[in-house]
Amino acid sequence: MNQQLASCIADYQSRINHHLEQVLAAQGATEPQLLAAMRHGLLLGGKRIRPLLVYLVGQLNDADNQALDAAAAAVECIHAYSLIHDDLPAMDDDDLRRGQPTCHKAFDEATAILAGDALQSLAFSLIADAPVSDQQKVMMLRVLSQAAGYQGMCGGQAIDIVSTNQKISLQQLEQLHQHKTGALIKAAIMLGAICGNIAQSEQQALSAYADALGLAFQVRDDILDIISDTDTLGKPQGSDQALNKSTYPSLLGLQGAIDKAESLGKEALQALERLPYNSQMLALLADYVVHRNN
Amino acid sequence: MNQQLASCIADYQSRINHHLEQVLAAQGATEPQLLAAMRHGLLLGGKRIRPLLVYLVGQLNDADNQALDAAAAAVECIHAYSLIHDDLPAMDDDDLRRGQPTCHKAFDEATAILAGDALQSLAFSLIADAPVSDQQKVMMLRVLSQAAGYQGMCGGQAIDIVSTNQKISLQQLEQLHQHKTGALIKAAIMLGAICGNIAQSEQQALSAYADALGLAFQVRDDILDIISDTDTLGKPQGSDQALNKSTYPSLLGLQGAIDKAESLGKEALQALERLPYNSQMLALLADYVVHRNN
Repeated sequence: MNQQLASCIADYQSRINHHLEQVLAAQGATEPQLLAAMRHGLLLGGKRIRPLLVYLVGQLNDADNQALDAAAAAVECIHAYSLIHDDLPAMDDDDLRRGQPTCHKAFDEATAILAGDALQSLAFSLIADAPVSDQQKVMMLRVLSQAAGYQGMCGGQAIDIVSTNQKISLQQLEQLHQHKTGALIKAAIMLGAICGNIAQSEQQALSAYADALGLAFQVRDDILDIISDTDTLGKPQGSDQALNKSTYPSLLGLQGAIDKAESLGKEALQALERLPYNSQMLALLADYVVHRNN
Repeated sequence: MNQQLASCIADYQSRINHHLEQVLAAQGATEPQLLAAMRHGLLLGGKRIRPLLVYLVGQLNDADNQALDAAAAAVECIHAYSLIHDDLPAMDDDDLRRGQPTCHKAFDEATAILAGDALQSLAFSLIADAPVSDQQKVMMLRVLSQAAGYQGMCGGQAIDIVSTNQKISLQQLEQLHQHKTGALIKAAIMLGAICGNIAQSEQQALSAYADALGLAFQVRDDILDIISDTDTLGKPQGSDQALNKSTYPSLLGLQGAIDKAESLGKEALQALERLPYNSQMLALLADYVVHRNN
Protein backbone atom coordinates (compact mmCIF):
# COMPACT_ATOMS: atom_id res chain seq x y z
CA MET A 1 0.00 0.00 0.00
CA ASN A 2 1.09 3.57 -0.71
CA GLN A 3 2.86 4.95 2.39
CA GLN A 4 0.87 8.17 2.54
CA LEU A 5 -2.45 6.30 2.31
CA ALA A 6 -1.32 3.74 4.89
CA SER A 7 -0.51 6.49 7.35
CA CYS A 8 -3.80 8.28 6.60
CA ILE A 9 -5.78 5.05 7.11
CA ALA A 10 -3.97 4.36 10.39
CA ASP A 11 -4.71 7.90 11.64
CA TYR A 12 -8.41 7.65 10.88
CA GLN A 13 -8.71 4.09 12.19
CA SER A 14 -7.32 5.35 15.45
CA ARG A 15 -9.60 8.41 15.40
CA ILE A 16 -12.81 6.46 14.68
CA ASN A 17 -11.96 3.68 17.15
CA HIS A 18 -11.40 6.28 19.86
CA HIS A 19 -14.67 8.00 18.97
CA LEU A 20 -16.62 4.71 18.92
CA GLU A 21 -15.21 3.91 22.39
CA GLN A 22 -16.56 7.26 23.60
CA VAL A 23 -19.93 6.58 21.99
CA LEU A 24 -20.17 3.21 23.75
CA ALA A 25 -19.03 4.66 27.07
CA ALA A 26 -21.90 7.16 26.89
CA GLN A 27 -24.53 4.40 26.59
CA GLY A 28 -24.77 3.67 30.32
CA ALA A 29 -25.10 0.33 32.08
CA THR A 30 -28.69 -0.73 31.29
CA GLU A 31 -27.58 -4.21 30.27
CA PRO A 32 -23.81 -4.89 30.41
CA GLN A 33 -23.86 -8.06 28.29
CA LEU A 34 -25.75 -6.38 25.45
CA LEU A 35 -23.31 -3.47 25.55
CA ALA A 36 -20.37 -5.90 25.50
CA ALA A 37 -21.84 -7.58 22.40
CA MET A 38 -22.31 -4.20 20.70
CA ARG A 39 -18.68 -3.38 21.53
CA HIS A 40 -17.54 -6.76 20.21
CA GLY A 41 -19.22 -6.08 16.87
CA LEU A 42 -18.17 -2.46 16.67
CA LEU A 43 -14.55 -2.71 17.85
CA LEU A 44 -13.54 -6.06 16.37
CA GLY A 45 -11.16 -4.18 14.10
CA GLY A 46 -11.56 -3.99 10.35
CA LYS A 47 -10.26 -1.56 7.81
CA ARG A 48 -12.82 1.17 8.59
CA ILE A 49 -13.15 1.97 4.88
CA ARG A 50 -16.57 3.58 5.34
CA PRO A 51 -15.49 5.97 8.12
CA LEU A 52 -12.36 6.76 6.08
CA LEU A 53 -14.58 7.74 3.15
CA VAL A 54 -16.67 10.00 5.38
CA TYR A 55 -13.53 11.81 6.60
CA LEU A 56 -11.78 12.06 3.23
CA VAL A 57 -14.85 13.37 1.41
CA GLY A 58 -15.83 15.78 4.19
CA GLN A 59 -12.34 17.21 4.28
CA LEU A 60 -12.37 18.01 0.57
CA ASN A 61 -14.39 21.05 1.60
CA ASP A 62 -13.17 21.54 5.19
CA ALA A 63 -16.06 19.92 7.05
CA ASP A 64 -16.02 20.10 10.84
CA ASN A 65 -14.11 17.09 12.21
CA GLN A 66 -16.59 16.44 15.02
CA ALA A 67 -19.45 16.38 12.53
CA LEU A 68 -17.46 13.82 10.55
CA ASP A 69 -16.85 11.76 13.71
CA ALA A 70 -20.60 11.49 14.22
CA ALA A 71 -21.31 10.63 10.59
CA ALA A 72 -18.46 8.11 10.42
CA ALA A 73 -19.59 6.43 13.64
CA ALA A 74 -23.17 6.23 12.36
CA VAL A 75 -22.12 4.51 9.13
CA GLU A 76 -19.85 2.12 11.02
CA CYS A 77 -22.68 1.22 13.44
CA ILE A 78 -24.82 0.23 10.43
CA HIS A 79 -21.94 -1.74 8.92
CA ALA A 80 -21.14 -3.51 12.19
CA TYR A 81 -24.80 -4.44 12.77
CA SER A 82 -25.04 -5.88 9.26
CA LEU A 83 -21.97 -8.06 9.82
CA ILE A 84 -23.35 -9.37 13.13
CA HIS A 85 -26.67 -10.32 11.51
CA ASP A 86 -25.08 -11.69 8.31
CA ASP A 87 -22.91 -14.04 10.38
CA LEU A 88 -25.91 -15.57 12.24
CA PRO A 89 -26.59 -19.30 11.82
CA ALA A 90 -29.80 -18.56 9.89
CA MET A 91 -27.82 -16.37 7.45
CA ASP A 92 -24.19 -17.13 6.45
CA ASP A 93 -23.49 -19.15 9.63
CA ASP A 94 -19.91 -17.88 10.02
CA ASP A 95 -17.82 -18.66 13.10
CA LEU A 96 -14.95 -16.33 12.26
CA ARG A 97 -14.90 -12.64 11.37
CA ARG A 98 -11.64 -10.70 11.15
CA GLY A 99 -9.89 -13.69 12.74
CA GLN A 100 -12.12 -13.52 15.84
CA PRO A 101 -15.23 -15.42 16.94
CA THR A 102 -18.37 -13.87 15.46
CA CYS A 103 -20.78 -12.13 17.84
CA HIS A 104 -23.17 -15.09 18.27
CA LYS A 105 -20.14 -17.35 18.98
CA ALA A 106 -18.62 -14.96 21.54
CA PHE A 107 -22.06 -14.39 23.13
CA ASP A 108 -25.23 -16.16 22.00
CA GLU A 109 -27.69 -15.81 19.13
CA ALA A 110 -30.31 -13.78 21.00
CA THR A 111 -27.70 -11.30 22.21
CA ALA A 112 -26.20 -11.04 18.73
CA ILE A 113 -29.60 -10.29 17.18
CA LEU A 114 -30.26 -7.61 19.81
CA ALA A 115 -26.77 -6.13 19.54
CA GLY A 116 -27.29 -5.68 15.81
CA ASP A 117 -30.71 -4.15 16.37
CA ALA A 118 -29.38 -1.75 19.00
CA LEU A 119 -26.43 -0.73 16.79
CA GLN A 120 -28.86 0.21 14.03
CA SER A 121 -30.84 2.42 16.44
CA LEU A 122 -27.58 3.88 17.73
CA ALA A 123 -26.56 4.92 14.22
CA PHE A 124 -29.69 7.05 13.94
CA SER A 125 -29.27 8.47 17.46
CA LEU A 126 -25.79 9.63 16.43
CA ILE A 127 -27.26 11.46 13.43
CA ALA A 128 -29.81 13.15 15.71
CA ASP A 129 -27.02 14.45 17.96
CA ALA A 130 -24.40 15.31 15.30
CA PRO A 131 -23.02 18.87 15.53
CA VAL A 132 -24.54 19.99 12.22
CA SER A 133 -27.67 21.95 11.24
CA ASP A 134 -31.11 20.32 11.42
CA GLN A 135 -31.25 20.50 7.63
CA GLN A 136 -28.00 18.53 7.36
CA LYS A 137 -29.22 15.99 9.92
CA VAL A 138 -32.37 15.36 7.92
CA MET A 139 -30.35 14.91 4.71
CA MET A 140 -28.02 12.49 6.50
CA LEU A 141 -30.98 10.63 8.00
CA ARG A 142 -32.58 10.21 4.58
CA VAL A 143 -29.34 8.98 2.96
CA LEU A 144 -28.47 6.53 5.75
CA SER A 145 -31.94 5.07 6.30
CA GLN A 146 -32.44 4.47 2.58
CA ALA A 147 -28.99 2.90 2.22
CA ALA A 148 -29.53 0.61 5.21
CA GLY A 149 -33.04 -0.60 4.42
CA TYR A 150 -35.11 -2.51 1.91
CA GLN A 151 -33.95 -0.36 -1.00
CA GLY A 152 -30.32 -0.77 0.06
CA MET A 153 -28.37 -3.15 2.25
CA CYS A 154 -31.22 -5.31 3.60
CA GLY A 155 -32.64 -5.71 0.11
CA GLY A 156 -29.19 -6.70 -1.15
CA GLN A 157 -28.74 -9.31 1.55
CA ALA A 158 -32.16 -10.74 0.66
CA ILE A 159 -31.21 -10.89 -3.03
CA ASP A 160 -27.96 -12.59 -1.98
CA ILE A 161 -29.86 -15.27 -0.06
CA VAL A 162 -32.29 -16.08 -2.88
CA SER A 163 -29.38 -16.07 -5.40
CA THR A 164 -27.34 -18.68 -3.54
CA ASN A 165 -27.23 -21.97 -5.44
CA GLN A 166 -28.56 -20.16 -8.51
CA LYS A 167 -26.79 -19.08 -11.66
CA ILE A 168 -27.44 -15.34 -11.93
CA SER A 169 -26.51 -12.90 -14.70
CA LEU A 170 -23.75 -10.29 -14.47
CA GLN A 171 -26.46 -7.63 -14.32
CA GLN A 172 -28.17 -9.37 -11.39
CA LEU A 173 -24.83 -9.77 -9.62
CA GLU A 174 -24.16 -6.06 -10.04
CA GLN A 175 -27.63 -5.19 -8.69
CA LEU A 176 -27.00 -7.48 -5.73
CA HIS A 177 -23.73 -5.73 -4.84
CA GLN A 178 -25.05 -2.23 -5.52
CA HIS A 179 -27.62 -2.95 -2.82
CA LYS A 180 -25.68 -5.16 -0.42
CA THR A 181 -22.41 -3.23 -0.15
CA GLY A 182 -22.52 -0.37 -2.67
CA ALA A 183 -25.39 1.47 -1.01
CA LEU A 184 -23.61 1.90 2.33
CA ILE A 185 -20.29 2.85 0.71
CA LYS A 186 -22.14 5.51 -1.26
CA ALA A 187 -23.94 6.63 1.90
CA ALA A 188 -20.56 7.10 3.63
CA ILE A 189 -19.42 9.33 0.78
CA MET A 190 -22.68 11.28 0.73
CA LEU A 191 -22.60 11.81 4.50
CA GLY A 192 -19.11 13.29 4.16
CA ALA A 193 -20.38 15.51 1.34
CA ILE A 194 -23.36 16.70 3.41
CA CYS A 195 -21.09 17.51 6.39
CA GLY A 196 -18.84 19.48 4.01
CA ASN A 197 -21.72 21.31 2.30
CA ILE A 198 -20.44 20.06 -1.04
CA ALA A 199 -22.49 21.37 -3.98
CA GLN A 200 -25.06 19.17 -5.72
CA SER A 201 -23.14 19.06 -9.01
CA GLU A 202 -19.99 17.90 -7.23
CA GLN A 203 -22.03 15.33 -5.32
CA GLN A 204 -22.81 13.76 -8.71
CA ALA A 205 -19.11 13.20 -9.38
CA LEU A 206 -18.73 11.77 -5.88
CA SER A 207 -21.69 9.52 -6.52
CA ALA A 208 -20.03 8.16 -9.68
CA TYR A 209 -16.81 7.63 -7.70
CA ALA A 210 -18.84 5.79 -5.05
CA ASP A 211 -20.51 3.48 -7.58
CA ALA A 212 -17.20 2.50 -9.16
CA LEU A 213 -15.38 2.16 -5.84
CA GLY A 214 -18.14 0.09 -4.24
CA LEU A 215 -18.28 -2.36 -7.13
CA ALA A 216 -14.47 -2.55 -7.41
CA PHE A 217 -14.36 -3.38 -3.71
CA GLN A 218 -16.72 -6.31 -4.24
CA VAL A 219 -15.03 -7.60 -7.41
CA ARG A 220 -11.70 -7.59 -5.54
CA ASP A 221 -13.39 -9.38 -2.60
CA ASP A 222 -14.53 -12.12 -4.96
CA ILE A 223 -11.01 -12.37 -6.43
CA LEU A 224 -9.41 -12.56 -2.98
CA ASP A 225 -11.79 -15.37 -1.99
CA ILE A 226 -10.01 -17.42 -4.68
CA ILE A 227 -6.39 -16.23 -4.65
CA SER A 228 -5.83 -15.45 -0.96
CA ASP A 229 -5.64 -17.68 2.11
CA THR A 230 -7.66 -17.84 5.34
CA ASP A 231 -4.96 -16.25 7.53
CA THR A 232 -4.57 -13.21 5.28
CA LEU A 233 -8.33 -12.79 4.84
CA GLY A 234 -9.25 -13.29 8.49
CA LYS A 235 -12.19 -15.40 7.26
CA PRO A 236 -12.35 -18.82 5.59
CA GLN A 237 -10.88 -18.74 2.07
CA GLY A 238 -13.10 -20.29 -0.60
CA SER A 239 -16.32 -19.59 1.34
CA ASP A 240 -18.10 -18.21 -1.77
CA GLN A 241 -17.45 -21.46 -3.63
CA ALA A 242 -18.44 -23.49 -0.57
CA LEU A 243 -21.77 -21.61 -0.48
CA ASN A 244 -22.09 -21.96 -4.26
CA LYS A 245 -22.44 -18.18 -4.72
CA SER A 246 -22.28 -16.46 -8.09
CA THR A 247 -19.15 -14.24 -8.15
CA TYR A 248 -17.33 -12.09 -10.70
CA PRO A 249 -14.64 -14.77 -11.26
CA SER A 250 -17.33 -17.44 -11.70
CA LEU A 251 -19.06 -15.31 -14.36
CA LEU A 252 -16.06 -13.59 -16.00
CA GLY A 253 -13.18 -15.94 -15.21
CA LEU A 254 -10.35 -14.87 -12.88
CA GLN A 255 -8.59 -12.67 -15.49
CA GLY A 256 -11.91 -11.17 -16.58
CA ALA A 257 -12.65 -10.23 -12.97
CA ILE A 258 -9.19 -8.69 -12.56
CA ASP A 259 -9.75 -6.63 -15.73
CA LYS A 260 -13.19 -5.58 -14.46
CA ALA A 261 -11.68 -4.33 -11.19
CA GLU A 262 -9.00 -2.37 -13.11
CA SER A 263 -11.61 -0.75 -15.31
CA LEU A 264 -13.76 0.22 -12.30
CA GLY A 265 -10.66 1.73 -10.68
CA LYS A 266 -10.15 3.92 -13.76
CA GLU A 267 -13.81 5.00 -13.66
CA ALA A 268 -13.37 6.05 -10.06
CA LEU A 269 -10.31 8.16 -10.94
CA GLN A 270 -12.12 9.80 -13.86
CA ALA A 271 -14.98 10.80 -11.57
CA LEU A 272 -12.53 12.45 -9.17
CA GLU A 273 -11.07 14.54 -12.00
CA ARG A 274 -14.42 16.34 -12.23
CA LEU A 275 -13.98 17.70 -8.69
CA PRO A 276 -12.43 21.13 -7.95
CA TYR A 277 -10.69 19.72 -4.86
CA ASN A 278 -7.41 17.97 -4.09
CA SER A 279 -8.71 14.39 -4.08
CA GLN A 280 -5.35 12.59 -4.07
CA MET A 281 -6.21 10.42 -1.05
CA LEU A 282 -9.47 9.26 -2.63
CA ALA A 283 -7.48 8.36 -5.77
CA LEU A 284 -4.93 6.38 -3.73
CA LEU A 285 -7.81 4.64 -1.99
CA ALA A 286 -9.38 3.57 -5.30
CA ASP A 287 -6.01 2.17 -6.38
CA TYR A 288 -5.70 0.29 -3.09
CA VAL A 289 -9.22 -1.16 -3.31
CA VAL A 290 -8.47 -2.60 -6.75
CA HIS A 291 -5.09 -4.11 -5.76
CA ARG A 292 -5.46 -4.97 -2.06
CA ASN A 293 -4.57 -8.41 -0.71
CA ASN A 294 -6.97 -8.57 2.23
CA MET B 1 -65.16 -1.34 25.61
CA ASN B 2 -66.68 2.14 25.60
CA GLN B 3 -68.55 2.61 22.31
CA GLN B 4 -66.98 5.95 21.49
CA LEU B 5 -63.45 4.59 22.06
CA ALA B 6 -64.22 1.44 20.06
CA SER B 7 -65.34 3.51 17.11
CA CYS B 8 -62.31 5.80 17.43
CA ILE B 9 -59.93 2.79 17.58
CA ALA B 10 -61.60 1.23 14.53
CA ASP B 11 -61.27 4.50 12.57
CA TYR B 12 -57.58 4.86 13.32
CA GLN B 13 -56.85 1.18 12.75
CA SER B 14 -58.33 1.57 9.33
CA ARG B 15 -56.43 4.83 8.73
CA ILE B 16 -53.02 3.47 9.79
CA ASN B 17 -53.49 0.16 7.95
CA HIS B 18 -54.32 2.06 4.79
CA HIS B 19 -51.30 4.30 5.25
CA LEU B 20 -48.98 1.35 5.95
CA GLU B 21 -50.23 -0.30 2.73
CA GLN B 22 -49.28 2.86 0.85
CA VAL B 23 -45.87 2.96 2.53
CA LEU B 24 -45.19 -0.66 1.50
CA ALA B 25 -46.46 -0.07 -2.05
CA ALA B 26 -43.91 2.75 -2.41
CA GLN B 27 -40.98 0.44 -1.58
CA GLY B 28 -40.62 -1.00 -5.09
CA ALA B 29 -39.87 -4.57 -6.11
CA THR B 30 -36.19 -5.01 -5.17
CA GLU B 31 -36.88 -8.30 -3.43
CA PRO B 32 -40.54 -9.46 -3.39
CA GLN B 33 -40.12 -12.09 -0.66
CA LEU B 34 -38.50 -9.64 1.74
CA LEU B 35 -41.26 -7.12 1.07
CA ALA B 36 -43.88 -9.84 1.67
CA ALA B 37 -42.26 -10.66 5.02
CA MET B 38 -42.23 -6.97 5.99
CA ARG B 39 -45.91 -6.76 5.05
CA HIS B 40 -46.64 -9.93 7.05
CA GLY B 41 -45.09 -8.37 10.15
CA LEU B 42 -46.61 -4.94 9.62
CA LEU B 43 -50.14 -5.87 8.57
CA LEU B 44 -50.77 -8.94 10.71
CA GLY B 45 -53.40 -6.94 12.58
CA GLY B 46 -53.04 -5.92 16.18
CA LYS B 47 -54.68 -3.21 18.20
CA ARG B 48 -52.47 -0.39 16.84
CA ILE B 49 -52.28 1.18 20.28
CA ARG B 50 -49.06 3.07 19.46
CA PRO B 51 -50.40 4.68 16.26
CA LEU B 52 -53.62 5.49 18.14
CA LEU B 53 -51.58 7.32 20.78
CA VAL B 54 -49.74 9.30 18.10
CA TYR B 55 -53.06 10.42 16.57
CA LEU B 56 -54.88 11.14 19.84
CA VAL B 57 -52.02 13.17 21.33
CA GLY B 58 -51.29 15.06 18.10
CA GLN B 59 -54.94 16.01 17.75
CA LEU B 60 -55.07 17.54 21.22
CA ASN B 61 -53.42 20.54 19.57
CA ASP B 62 -54.62 20.12 15.96
CA ALA B 63 -51.52 18.51 14.44
CA ASP B 64 -51.55 17.91 10.69
CA ASN B 65 -53.05 14.47 10.00
CA GLN B 66 -50.47 13.56 7.37
CA ALA B 67 -47.66 14.36 9.77
CA LEU B 68 -49.36 12.04 12.27
CA ASP B 69 -49.68 9.32 9.61
CA ALA B 70 -45.90 9.41 9.11
CA ALA B 71 -45.14 9.40 12.84
CA ALA B 72 -47.67 6.64 13.55
CA ALA B 73 -46.30 4.49 10.73
CA ALA B 74 -42.73 4.99 11.98
CA VAL B 75 -43.62 3.86 15.51
CA GLU B 76 -45.56 0.87 14.18
CA CYS B 77 -42.60 -0.17 11.97
CA ILE B 78 -40.39 -0.25 15.08
CA HIS B 79 -43.04 -2.19 17.02
CA ALA B 80 -43.57 -4.69 14.18
CA TYR B 81 -39.82 -5.27 13.76
CA SER B 82 -39.45 -5.90 17.48
CA LEU B 83 -42.23 -8.50 17.44
CA ILE B 84 -40.66 -10.31 14.45
CA HIS B 85 -37.27 -10.48 16.19
CA ASP B 86 -38.73 -11.34 19.63
CA ASP B 87 -40.57 -14.31 18.11
CA LEU B 88 -37.39 -15.82 16.56
CA PRO B 89 -36.26 -19.28 17.74
CA ALA B 90 -33.18 -17.76 19.44
CA MET B 91 -35.45 -15.39 21.38
CA ASP B 92 -38.98 -16.33 22.57
CA ASP B 93 -39.41 -19.04 19.90
CA ASP B 94 -43.08 -18.33 19.28
CA ASP B 95 -45.03 -19.99 16.45
CA LEU B 96 -48.17 -17.89 16.83
CA ARG B 97 -48.70 -14.14 16.96
CA ARG B 98 -52.16 -12.61 16.81
CA GLY B 99 -53.50 -16.04 15.91
CA GLN B 100 -51.29 -16.26 12.79
CA PRO B 101 -47.94 -17.94 12.07
CA THR B 102 -45.03 -15.75 13.15
CA CYS B 103 -42.83 -14.26 10.42
CA HIS B 104 -40.09 -16.93 10.59
CA LYS B 105 -42.79 -19.63 10.40
CA ALA B 106 -44.57 -18.02 7.43
CA PHE B 107 -41.20 -17.39 5.70
CA ASP B 108 -37.85 -18.49 7.14
CA GLU B 109 -35.49 -17.26 9.84
CA ALA B 110 -33.11 -15.35 7.56
CA THR B 111 -35.99 -13.52 5.90
CA ALA B 112 -37.57 -12.73 9.27
CA ILE B 113 -34.30 -11.27 10.59
CA LEU B 114 -33.93 -9.12 7.45
CA ALA B 115 -37.58 -8.06 7.45
CA GLY B 116 -37.15 -6.79 11.01
CA ASP B 117 -33.94 -5.00 10.10
CA ALA B 118 -35.53 -3.38 7.06
CA LEU B 119 -38.60 -2.28 9.04
CA GLN B 120 -36.33 -0.51 11.52
CA SER B 121 -34.61 1.39 8.68
CA LEU B 122 -38.01 2.15 7.15
CA ALA B 123 -39.19 3.74 10.40
CA PHE B 124 -36.35 6.25 10.18
CA SER B 125 -36.91 6.86 6.46
CA LEU B 126 -40.50 7.77 7.28
CA ILE B 127 -39.31 10.35 9.81
CA ALA B 128 -36.94 11.83 7.19
CA ASP B 129 -39.85 12.29 4.77
CA ALA B 130 -42.57 13.35 7.22
CA PRO B 131 -44.39 16.59 6.29
CA VAL B 132 -43.05 18.55 9.27
CA SER B 133 -40.21 21.02 9.79
CA ASP B 134 -36.59 19.83 9.91
CA GLN B 135 -36.52 20.79 13.58
CA GLN B 136 -39.52 18.56 14.29
CA LYS B 137 -37.96 15.71 12.29
CA VAL B 138 -34.79 15.89 14.35
CA MET B 139 -36.77 15.87 17.60
CA MET B 140 -38.76 12.87 16.38
CA LEU B 141 -35.58 11.11 15.25
CA ARG B 142 -33.99 11.59 18.68
CA VAL B 143 -37.07 10.34 20.54
CA LEU B 144 -37.61 7.30 18.33
CA SER B 145 -33.97 6.17 18.03
CA GLN B 146 -33.46 6.41 21.81
CA ALA B 147 -36.70 4.56 22.52
CA ALA B 148 -35.84 1.78 20.07
CA GLY B 149 -32.22 1.20 21.02
CA TYR B 150 -29.97 0.10 23.86
CA GLN B 151 -31.41 2.66 26.28
CA GLY B 152 -34.95 1.60 25.37
CA MET B 153 -36.56 -1.39 23.74
CA CYS B 154 -33.46 -3.44 22.84
CA GLY B 155 -32.04 -2.93 26.31
CA GLY B 156 -35.38 -4.04 27.79
CA GLN B 157 -35.46 -7.19 25.68
CA ALA B 158 -31.90 -7.98 26.82
CA ILE B 159 -32.89 -7.49 30.47
CA ASP B 160 -35.89 -9.75 29.83
CA ILE B 161 -33.65 -12.51 28.48
CA VAL B 162 -31.20 -12.44 31.40
CA SER B 163 -34.12 -12.24 33.87
CA THR B 164 -35.81 -15.42 32.61
CA ASN B 165 -35.55 -18.24 35.15
CA GLN B 166 -34.48 -15.70 37.75
CA LYS B 167 -36.42 -14.24 40.64
CA ILE B 168 -36.26 -10.46 40.15
CA SER B 169 -37.52 -7.64 42.35
CA LEU B 170 -40.56 -5.48 41.63
CA GLN B 171 -38.18 -2.60 40.91
CA GLN B 172 -36.24 -4.69 38.37
CA LEU B 173 -39.47 -5.84 36.74
CA GLU B 174 -40.58 -2.23 36.43
CA GLN B 175 -37.23 -1.23 34.88
CA LEU B 176 -37.55 -4.14 32.44
CA HIS B 177 -40.97 -3.02 31.26
CA GLN B 178 -40.11 0.68 31.19
CA HIS B 179 -37.43 -0.26 28.66
CA LYS B 180 -39.04 -3.13 26.79
CA THR B 181 -42.52 -1.72 26.18
CA GLY B 182 -42.79 1.60 28.05
CA ALA B 183 -40.14 3.40 26.00
CA LEU B 184 -41.91 2.91 22.68
CA ILE B 185 -45.35 3.76 24.11
CA LYS B 186 -43.87 6.97 25.48
CA ALA B 187 -42.18 7.63 22.13
CA ALA B 188 -45.56 7.33 20.38
CA ILE B 189 -47.01 9.92 22.72
CA MET B 190 -44.00 12.23 22.34
CA LEU B 191 -44.09 11.97 18.53
CA GLY B 192 -47.73 13.04 18.60
CA ALA B 193 -46.79 15.93 20.90
CA ILE B 194 -43.95 17.02 18.57
CA CYS B 195 -46.25 16.93 15.53
CA GLY B 196 -48.77 19.06 17.47
CA ASN B 197 -46.15 21.52 18.74
CA ILE B 198 -47.32 20.84 22.28
CA ALA B 199 -45.49 22.96 24.86
CA GLN B 200 -42.68 21.49 26.99
CA SER B 201 -44.63 21.85 30.27
CA GLU B 202 -47.58 19.97 28.79
CA GLN B 203 -45.23 17.31 27.43
CA GLN B 204 -44.32 16.58 31.05
CA ALA B 205 -47.92 15.74 31.87
CA LEU B 206 -48.10 13.58 28.75
CA SER B 207 -44.87 11.87 29.80
CA ALA B 208 -46.40 11.01 33.18
CA TYR B 209 -49.51 9.69 31.40
CA ALA B 210 -47.23 7.61 29.15
CA ASP B 211 -45.33 6.09 32.09
CA ALA B 212 -48.51 5.07 33.87
CA LEU B 213 -50.24 3.82 30.72
CA GLY B 214 -47.22 1.81 29.54
CA LEU B 215 -46.83 0.05 32.86
CA ALA B 216 -50.58 -0.53 33.22
CA PHE B 217 -50.55 -2.12 29.77
CA GLN B 218 -47.86 -4.56 30.87
CA VAL B 219 -49.41 -5.36 34.25
CA ARG B 220 -52.69 -6.15 32.45
CA ASP B 221 -50.78 -8.29 29.92
CA ASP B 222 -49.35 -10.33 32.79
CA ILE B 223 -52.82 -10.68 34.33
CA LEU B 224 -54.34 -11.78 31.01
CA ASP B 225 -51.63 -14.41 30.58
CA ILE B 226 -53.16 -16.07 33.65
CA ILE B 227 -56.91 -15.37 33.44
CA SER B 228 -57.51 -15.45 29.67
CA ASP B 229 -57.39 -18.28 27.12
CA THR B 230 -55.32 -18.86 23.97
CA ASP B 231 -58.17 -18.07 21.53
CA THR B 232 -58.95 -14.70 23.11
CA LEU B 233 -55.27 -13.75 23.44
CA GLY B 234 -54.22 -14.88 19.94
CA LYS B 235 -51.09 -16.31 21.56
CA PRO B 236 -50.54 -19.27 23.90
CA GLN B 237 -52.08 -18.67 27.33
CA GLY B 238 -49.71 -19.33 30.22
CA SER B 239 -46.57 -18.64 28.16
CA ASP B 240 -45.03 -16.46 30.88
CA GLN B 241 -45.32 -19.30 33.39
CA ALA B 242 -44.03 -21.79 30.80
CA LEU B 243 -40.95 -19.58 30.29
CA ASN B 244 -40.66 -19.10 34.06
CA LYS B 245 -40.75 -15.31 33.74
CA SER B 246 -41.19 -12.95 36.66
CA THR B 247 -44.54 -11.17 36.30
CA TYR B 248 -46.65 -8.78 38.36
CA PRO B 249 -49.01 -11.59 39.49
CA SER B 250 -46.03 -13.77 40.46
CA LEU B 251 -44.60 -10.93 42.59
CA LEU B 252 -47.81 -9.30 43.88
CA GLY B 253 -50.37 -12.10 43.61
CA LEU B 254 -53.28 -11.84 41.15
CA GLN B 255 -55.33 -9.40 43.27
CA GLY B 256 -52.22 -7.32 43.99
CA ALA B 257 -51.56 -7.06 40.25
CA ILE B 258 -55.18 -6.06 39.57
CA ASP B 259 -54.92 -3.34 42.26
CA LYS B 260 -51.62 -2.18 40.76
CA ALA B 261 -53.21 -1.81 37.32
CA GLU B 262 -56.13 0.15 38.82
CA SER B 263 -53.77 2.48 40.62
CA LEU B 264 -51.71 3.08 37.45
CA GLY B 265 -54.92 3.83 35.57
CA LYS B 266 -55.75 6.52 38.18
CA GLU B 267 -52.25 8.00 37.81
CA ALA B 268 -52.77 8.24 34.07
CA LEU B 269 -56.07 10.09 34.53
CA GLN B 270 -54.52 12.50 37.03
CA ALA B 271 -51.76 13.35 34.55
CA LEU B 272 -54.37 14.16 31.90
CA GLU B 273 -56.10 16.59 34.25
CA ARG B 274 -53.00 18.80 34.06
CA LEU B 275 -53.56 19.34 30.32
CA PRO B 276 -55.50 22.33 28.91
CA TYR B 277 -57.02 20.10 26.21
CA ASN B 278 -60.04 17.84 25.85
CA SER B 279 -58.32 14.54 26.56
CA GLN B 280 -61.43 12.39 26.95
CA MET B 281 -60.27 9.76 24.44
CA LEU B 282 -56.92 9.35 26.19
CA ALA B 283 -58.82 8.88 29.45
CA LEU B 284 -61.09 6.23 27.91
CA LEU B 285 -57.99 4.52 26.53
CA ALA B 286 -56.35 4.36 29.97
CA ASP B 287 -59.53 2.82 31.35
CA TYR B 288 -59.58 0.29 28.51
CA VAL B 289 -55.90 -0.66 28.99
CA VAL B 290 -56.53 -1.45 32.66
CA HIS B 291 -59.67 -3.51 32.04
CA ARG B 292 -59.18 -5.07 28.59
CA ASN B 293 -59.62 -8.80 28.00
CA ASN B 294 -57.19 -9.27 25.13
